[in-house]
Amino acid sequence: MSKADPGTIGQYLLACLYQGGVEHIFGVPGDYVLGFYGLMAKGPVRHIGTTREDTAAFAADGYARCRGMGALAVTYGVGALNTVNAIAGAYAESSPVVVISGAPGVREQRDDPLIHHRFGPFRFQREIFERITCAAVVLDDPVIAFRQVERALAAARQHCKPVYIEIPADQVMAPGYPMPREIPETPSSDDSALAEAVAEAAELLGHAVSPVVLAGVELHRRGLQDALVGLVEQARLPVAATLTGKSVFAERHPAYLGVYEGAMSTENARYLVEQSDLLLMLGVTLNDVDTGIYTARLDPQRIVRAAQNEVVIRHHRYPRVLLADFVAALARSVKARGEAFPAPAAPQPWDFPAPDRPMTIARLVERLDRALAPDMIVVCDVGDCLFAAADLRVHERSEFLASAFYTSMGFAVPAALGAQVARPDHRALILVGDGAFQMTGTELSTHARLGLAPIVVVFDNRGYNTERFILDGAFNDIADWRFHRLGEVFGPMQGYEAPDETAFESALSEALANRSMPSLINVRLPPGDASIAMKRLAGHLQSRVKGEG
Amino acid sequence: MSKADPGTIGQYLLACLYQGGVEHIFGVPGDYVLGFYGLMAKGPVRHIGTTREDTAAFAADGYARCRGMGALAVTYGVGALNTVNAIAGAYAESSPVVVISGAPGVREQRDDPLIHHRFGPFRFQREIFERITCAAVVLDDPVIAFRQVERALAAARQHCKPVYIEIPADQVMAPGYPMPREIPETPSSDDSALAEAVAEAAELLGHAVSPVVLAGVELHRRGLQDALVGLVEQARLPVAATLTGKSVFAERHPAYLGVYEGAMSTENARYLVEQSDLLLMLGVTLNDVDTGIYTARLDPQRIVRAAQNEVVIRHHRYPRVLLADFVAALARSVKARGEAFPAPAAPQPWDFPAPDRPMTIARLVERLDRALAPDMIVVCDVGDCLFAAADLRVHERSEFLASAFYTSMGFAVPAALGAQVARPDHRALILVGDGAFQMTGTELSTHARLGLAPIVVVFDNRGYNTERFILDGAFNDIADWRFHRLGEVFGPMQGYEAPDETAFESALSEALANRSMPSLINVRLPPGDASIAMKRLAGHLQSRVKGEG
Repeated sequence: MSKADPGTIGQYLLACLYQGGVEHIFGVPGDYVLGFYGLMAKGPVRHIGTTREDTAAFAADGYARCRGMGALAVTYGVGALNTVNAIAGAYAESSPVVVISGAPGVREQRDDPLIHHRFGPFRFQREIFERITCAAVVLDDPVIAFRQVERALAAARQHCKPVYIEIPADQVMAPGYPMPREIPETPSSDDSALAEAVAEAAELLGHAVSPVVLAGVELHRRGLQDALVGLVEQARLPVAATLTGKSVFAERHPAYLGVYEGAMSTENARYLVEQSDLLLMLGVTLNDVDTGIYTARLDPQRIVRAAQNEVVIRHHRYPRVLLADFVAALARSVKARGEAFPAPAAPQPWDFPAPDRPMTIARLVERLDRALAPDMIVVCDVGDCLFAAADLRVHERSEFLASAFYTSMGFAVPAALGAQVARPDHRALILVGDGAFQMTGTELSTHARLGLAPIVVVFDNRGYNTERFILDGAFNDIADWRFHRLGEVFGPMQGYEAPDETAFESALSEALANRSMPSLINVRLPPGDASIAMKRLAGHLQSRVKGEG
Repeated sequence: MSKADPGTIGQYLLACLYQGGVEHIFGVPGDYVLGFYGLMAKGPVRHIGTTREDTAAFAADGYARCRGMGALAVTYGVGALNTVNAIAGAYAESSPVVVISGAPGVREQRDDPLIHHRFGPFRFQREIFERITCAAVVLDDPVIAFRQVERALAAARQHCKPVYIEIPADQVMAPGYPMPREIPETPSSDDSALAEAVAEAAELLGHAVSPVVLAGVELHRRGLQDALVGLVEQARLPVAATLTGKSVFAERHPAYLGVYEGAMSTENARYLVEQSDLLLMLGVTLNDVDTGIYTARLDPQRIVRAAQNEVVIRHHRYPRVLLADFVAALARSVKARGEAFPAPAAPQPWDFPAPDRPMTIARLVERLDRALAPDMIVVCDVGDCLFAAADLRVHERSEFLASAFYTSMGFAVPAALGAQVARPDHRALILVGDGAFQMTGTELSTHARLGLAPIVVVFDNRGYNTERFILDGAFNDIADWRFHRLGEVFGPMQGYEAPDETAFESALSEALANRSMPSLINVRLPPGDASIAMKRLAGHLQSRVKGEG
């Protein structure tokens, strides 16, 4: 693609994605997008076929969280509309996923024909995606198509949100029209506001007796993990994370207190955060999950809160102060506090596995915590396993992926596919409930096909256990699957059934040693078992279902 | 619910559905809809739990096609948005499915909080469903809620389309406000136009030498199958059906010619339809599938076409003539033609199974045709199996269900669940490709759980075979599943692998005899095998992908 030959619209889209770090595109082919697939097969971007479109979208989401951008390519109607939930999740969770949808050709659409996969006026699909993306474009005019592509991808990057790009079948090979490249406006801080905010925050920090940092998901989305470490080590501050921000701070770091989530937190984390005389909230979103369904007790009088584009100290605001600038400048302004961080405590000896002891979630999570290796990415589904996993301490930054705010069941297995493709040097540890696994777990077939070797731990309590704590009924029971035998259907995959600790220990050792195929451990949990955090949460949810909320 | 106690909004919704023939509601519970589930558990409407929400919607679609209305209940966001594709399909295919979505309570929404499952302004979900339903209401005002429910259900019935009813969690038990019941306006024909149109059509029929009826899907949706039989037997006319209208006319009837679909038709059907000097098109939609991707050669000069609300004869229109009135009045006006229908030919003896003969689609379909029993419903997925199934002759009316126009892969297994729940006296024969089965086939788990005994025939060619004929590439290959071993995971289910005719015959006999659990026959097809209709279609699609269309 030179000035003389600008290339086609499809080529340009693929080139821009590749330059943006997207080396793999997930998806299921279909006739309106086949031309694009044919083009992709000739270039460096690799197609990763999934069994369904929603799982392709979850995979692209996992990929985006590891690489800064992910993409999927699907056909019109039946393909794209299958991704609506997963893309809404990427929007809610701030993950920059590019949805490429084929469509009937421009010439084909002209007479408004009744053609297959059609469900209404052709524009309806774009209108649906406009509600779950930060930009939605249809490349039906070659003269402006290059510009549309650039702006859509820039929007995805800037807002950390999904975008929608529809490419009619007859436009894939249409020559584009080169235009001046847009220089995207880089957001910047108001220098005076920044200086004043930093000075005030540093002053407050200097006088505080028990300051604590609460780290949120925006730090991850803006790539500020290192900046956070810089600030924390400079000022010697303890750090808690929100549930959606989990793993934004290295969890084996001596400064780490654990996850703060209101009444669901550990006693220690809750006490230190809520009693702190200066809580420095960085990139925290105040949603119901992160606040333990609004059970957080945080006093604005003692809070300095930096969001993406403003700093709030007590009851006054500094607009146009960027999170990145604030964290960096504050690190330069603060003085180190008294003591250095203590050396991490050596792990205590432990009696796992105890003979004849049935598995419980609490002991399962502690065992997994000890098994975590630096090359692992933990990908966690929704429900019990998410609440329990708050206590896992992952090693490096960015190693815990979950749909912790949007809480869509079925996220983990396909998102782990994307994460592993994005970071082939890492191995996924997938935590997933039985209900969620029944939704998307067969995507493990693709892990197996690609020679990936995730370890899947199924929290099997034969139903929607979180809901049982809110309102129980037969509707919360589900079919009893022998998950560990799925390898019979689409192996290679090694499966294990673990009703007790001895069986689990043996399965886990084998799984850790087996790097040639997926391993699945079906942990049969006793009825009524749950994480403590979940029991606390359920009490609060109950009152809401009853209409008391 | 008396005048003194009008009952709650949730009670009223359930009562209206039950009165409308909805005795089962499909779905997955979630916290925003749990109150509704709790209420349902106390009444006569039964909940049928599925593994996912999209399959619940397909099941409700299958149920609606058998019962006149179907319903599902899901939670906000993660639940409802997972059904968008299936509901768009129900819209495209004219199936009256009621989507009941929970939502955060009205009081909970008031302060616009960031709560889980949220992806944007709360109204966005309704705005998405407005594009794929014929009515979308939010029951957030008890004073008008009863009226909203009535009108939404009336719209579903009148337009044969899905509707969306959102019920905030705190409104389920809110007392409603009784209002005068709406008397829905019954559409009626313009009597003079009707009389004139019928007279002209009867006159043309009287002079025609080779008249043929082409029967379409609208006859099914409006319940006019018996009326069609009346007309055909009165006038002694031969009948072809469109692919989407397949089975609207009893296919073992001596008058039946087979499916007409342009260049994809059998020679006989194509000749008789295209050479007819008077083609009477009843309830036919002229989409790309029904016209064999616009290869139909039909001369408007020789056509009388009755749609839902108008009759077109050659180039002039009679507006406000209802299809039902036209068919009934025409039956009264026409005279019987010469000969009575011939007695159906006795089936020819046949050499199936031939020893050591690999299975092919053509022989598979012929074998299935002979196995069809009057108590079977054929539910067919998309691709090869759909094109091949055009040659199956089902017995009774309404026994062939498919997403033949919207062509969403993954329809068959869950839709068959709905059909069997709706008609427990029938048994489903499910035809499905390997790609489609990987999308939703694990919903067979629910068939097994309910003690249903469908026979599933997997057309296994290890990939998206329809697409291979359009544009081949590695992207059309999929993982090789041992589908017949799925019973290991969620049985009871009997599985068979059938690479050749002997194995298939043995499996089919066992499956026909086994009425206590699902049977699955994995038919391993040789590479390159395809139905003749598909080969013809692929040629036409090819030119479109290449942008020549």
